[in-house]
Amino acid sequence: MSNAGQVIKCKAAVAWEAGKPLSIEEVEVAPPQKHEVRVKILFTSLCHTDVYFWEAKGQNPLFPRIFGHEAGGVVESVGEGVTDLKPGDHVLPIFTGECKECPHCLSEESNMCDLLRINTDRGGMIHDGKPRFSKDGKAIYHFLGTSTFSEYTVLHAGQVAKINPEAPLDKVCVLSCGMSTGFGATVNVAKPKKGQSVAVFGLGAVGLAAAEGARVSGASRIIGIDLNPNRFEEAKKFGCTEFVNPKDHDKPVQEVIAAMTGGGVDRSVECTGSIQAMISAFECVHDGWGVAVLVGVPSKDDAFKTSPVNFLNERTLKGTFFGNYKPRSDIPGVVEKYMKKELELDKFITHSVPFAEINKAFDYMLAGEGLRCVVRMDA
Amino acid sequence: MSNAGQVIKCKAAVAWEAGKPLSIEEVEVAPPQKHEVRVKILFTSLCHTDVYFWEAKGQNPLFPRIFGHEAGGVVESVGEGVTDLKPGDHVLPIFTGECKECPHCLSEESNMCDLLRINTDRGGMIHDGKPRFSKDGKAIYHFLGTSTFSEYTVLHAGQVAKINPEAPLDKVCVLSCGMSTGFGATVNVAKPKKGQSVAVFGLGAVGLAAAEGARVSGASRIIGIDLNPNRFEEAKKFGCTEFVNPKDHDKPVQEVIAAMTGGGVDRSVECTGSIQAMISAFECVHDGWGVAVLVGVPSKDDAFKTSPVNFLNERTLKGTFFGNYKPRSDIPGVVEKYMKKELELDKFITHSVPFAEINKAFDYMLAGEGLRCVVRMDA
Repeated sequence: MSNAGQVIKCKAAVAWEAGKPLSIEEVEVAPPQKHEVRVKILFTSLCHTDVYFWEAKGQNPLFPRIFGHEAGGVVESVGEGVTDLKPGDHVLPIFTGECKECPHCLSEESNMCDLLRINTDRGGMIHDGKPRFSKDGKAIYHFLGTSTFSEYTVLHAGQVAKINPEAPLDKVCVLSCGMSTGFGATVNVAKPKKGQSVAVFGLGAVGLAAAEGARVSGASRIIGIDLNPNRFEEAKKFGCTEFVNPKDHDKPVQEVIAAMTGGGVDRSVECTGSIQAMISAFECVHDGWGVAVLVGVPSKDDAFKTSPVNFLNERTLKGTFFGNYKPRSDIPGVVEKYMKKELELDKFITHSVPFAEINKAFDYMLAGEGLRCVVRMDA
Repeated sequence: MSNAGQVIKCKAAVAWEAGKPLSIEEVEVAPPQKHEVRVKILFTSLCHTDVYFWEAKGQNPLFPRIFGHEAGGVVESVGEGVTDLKPGDHVLPIFTGECKECPHCLSEESNMCDLLRINTDRGGMIHDGKPRFSKDGKAIYHFLGTSTFSEYTVLHAGQVAKINPEAPLDKVCVLSCGMSTGFGATVNVAKPKKGQSVAVFGLGAVGLAAAEGARVSGASRIIGIDLNPNRFEEAKKFGCTEFVNPKDHDKPVQEVIAAMTGGGVDRSVECTGSIQAMISAFECVHDGWGVAVLVGVPSKDDAFKTSPVNFLNERTLKGTFFGNYKPRSDIPGVVEKYMKKELELDKFITHSVPFAEINKAFDYMLAGEGLRCVVRMDA
């Protein structure tokens, strides 16, 4: 029996207020409008960005809201004008989109789509500005255009990556955001050559995905930098060969790394968002050829500051967004890498909970326990 | 009759004191020692760096000294262990060298040779620390290992690029430094694609060489930025299609350029050394794919400062040294580009004087007149 064109009643985890536990509610999900698709979510995982906006520190709060953006699911129905997706397709929702028509989408180098670039303030759909979620007639806002903490959600078709239907959604769901961000930062942007050294600043999930990218690239040394030494043991599974805790040294960590490596690492990837780590990540790369890549999101008023001579000595500094992957064009290929065992994902999934216990995923993250907690929607 | 192994007496333009006119003197030039070559200079041109160190503001003065580093000549004799150069070879002396053995020389990406990297403080030869120049028994210091303001000079063989003997040395001598620096910054580092837009900050000789690189690359728009509007007319010969004088605008020049170009240029090249221009050159490139390249040498205490979000929006910042050319491996190929008319040089040479009038070249540069003044050594 098809629900196409009908409102669907289903369970969603609603955030009624900033920082308060989510509440599992029956909500109504309107049918997809023009260029939209409705997706049955099967697995979703929790990312720091969900927690950051749920806490609503330092931004305009928008509640009630359904969070969630790392997920895997199946297309339930499609709206007008959607031609490349159909019911039954296996998909990953992506928090940033690809319209395939704007200058960014037409550029080989950019993934920052003008139409569907990440927008953390928007609570409705682009088509008419309205949310597709409601409860008892009251609108519930979307988050990042994905809102995957719901059994069904509506997305712009440009934010949906169609993937191999044989890929296990409970694993590849983590490619929706964090793992692709870190992995892509290394393989698409830092691009270490086989045998080169790579420093990774921050050994959370994104940093470890960057380390996984270095491992897959054949890096000879992967130096993990973190203020929390408890992360070093786990990081070995992700290819890290050495560790530096800046707290253990009197001199700046970039000097420690330069001394360890005969002048600097070949590549570095910054995954903390700390401005000091960003500066260290740049200054620790070797002159002549070093490339530093910024991934972590800084505070609004931070200023990056360094001597221009560091650039003139032929160092390169780049930033990346979503690992420079174009969501629809590139993510299916990353899923294929997992299927071919060229990329490991299972080790990132340290916890799993049924949907009814989604607040436990928040507890794990707030306690700094594990990397990714996958929420089973049908459990 | 060969002078090999003998001291040569010849004329040189000696700087006895900082900022005082050079004095043409008869000097003695010792034979080349191990890994050295003695070169008869036929043409030399004056570059800002000569003037900067001749004025000796802000660095340790080293006098008496023979300046000069842009030049063309012919090998007169070679010292022990020199196998790839022989008397009669046509060569360009280069202020930075290529040993072909260190990690930088072995890297495809770097030209910052560990052994022969530019050294502005060194007054003698690497082999024994002593100068090869003297007058009446008093040593005269070298400059940049080149000292081309002399009829004969001695260089480390790693600082000598062997070129096509058919190339006119009175033209290609300018490839020793400035023209290669600017041209290479664009073609080797900024790498604009055909049809892209390029902003060039600073329309002196190096900036115009960067513009020439953009023209040769098929840039659709070349926007020249300078505080001196007198430079705009001449810059048209170098491919500049539009001009911006920051003094004509109330808002920062990066905003002016963004407004002119729908969000920013595709590439920018900074050739002034002003820290503010460096920041503007970075912030004026388009998000998603923009690349900014720093060429100009800043003051020692300058700090480059920008919001890290400018990087995260997928902008790239790089610096370059000598246009990323490896002196011995790559410069002969740049000479070939000139021979094939793929690169224009004649328009850079605005003045020419006989050696006896070398001080006029300083006058032209100090007055900001013209681009390059070639000094004819045998005239």
